[in-house]
Amino acid sequence: MLIGFIILGSEAIMVYKVFPGLSHDTAKLTHLILHAIAIVLGAVGIYCAFKFHNESGIANLYSLHSWLGIGAISLYGIQWIFGFVTFFFPGAAPDVRRGALPWHALFGLFVYVLTLATAELGFLEKMTFLQSSGLDKYGAEALLVNFTALVVVLFGAAVVVAAVAPAAKVEEPEGYAPIPVIG
Amino acid sequence: MLIGFIILGSEAIMVYKVFPGLSHDTAKLTHLILHAIAIVLGAVGIYCAFKFHNESGIANLYSLHSWLGIGAISLYGIQWIFGFVTFFFPGAAPDVRRGALPWHALFGLFVYVLTLATAELGFLEKMTFLQSSGLDKYGAEALLVNFTALVVVLFGAAVVVAAVAPAAKVEEPEGYAPIPVIG
Repeated sequence: MLIGFIILGSEAIMVYKVFPGLSHDTAKLTHLILHAIAIVLGAVGIYCAFKFHNESGIANLYSLHSWLGIGAISLYGIQWIFGFVTFFFPGAAPDVRRGALPWHALFGLFVYVLTLATAELGFLEKMTFLQSSGLDKYGAEALLVNFTALVVVLFGAAVVVAAVAPAAKVEEPEGYAPIPVIG
Repeated sequence: MLIGFIILGSEAIMVYKVFPGLSHDTAKLTHLILHAIAIVLGAVGIYCAFKFHNESGIANLYSLHSWLGIGAISLYGIQWIFGFVTFFFPGAAPDVRRGALPWHALFGLFVYVLTLATAELGFLEKMTFLQSSGLDKYGAEALLVNFTALVVVLFGAAVVVAAVAPAAKVEEPEGYAPIPVIG
């Protein structure tokens, strides 16, 4: 669930850059739908964490992992609602949109990095619990988890680079230029 | 030590934006000296971690905190050497500098966020160790550590915003403009 959250959120961030040929409206719709699915997956994942804790008699919401995680999903939701209202429906005035867009992108990247940091905290926390119950500190599981965490860091860095890189230029085929869509 | 590492590194990142009145050369020298002190403090901090582990019979370099930390300080050092050679001495050709600058800034922010993530992992790891030895999960120490970790996240976000924000315009006093310094 939380892997799906991060992967779909990443795809949503990259949709404007990975498919420069998409029309602006299609890219925007894909962006908001992917983020919506990511939020639902994230919420289900957090529900499962509470369910597991309650059924195993583990305390809730005491660790930094849980604090940053609740913060990240809350900001993710606020960011989605803000983006929906400003850029989709009902939509703000053009100059408000223009002013809000860089902040939408910057705050979105902040929330994205916060979800990555929360994932890293989760990897560490789970391994610390297992290792204090006797799991080998240099064993195969430990290496697998740490390397997975490194892959998440590198993947996240690649997503951020894709998001901040200048947009690819789309060559118009045969000199044909579509009528620009407003909004 | 590691708090000094993060604070001095942050100041070094912000020096171009917080003091827009500094000459370019002064700002650059301050940037590289602050980062150099930050690296030394970070290295001393890591030396102390190994010393404490060895004297207490704790295993070294098994956790994600240590892995990301070693990665972060190594990349920090590489970034410093690369920046020194390219922008300070002997210095690259002007068009190489121009091409390298945005990558220097982007990679620098990546390494900075990596140090922040490592600090968060350190807070979590230390608290998990203390709490599995019986420290109260919702006690004053736990809240203090978690709120400190939140302050580090917010401070880091503020530093990144300061770094990516457009530069402040410096008004020339009394119509006097200094001779621009080359380099």
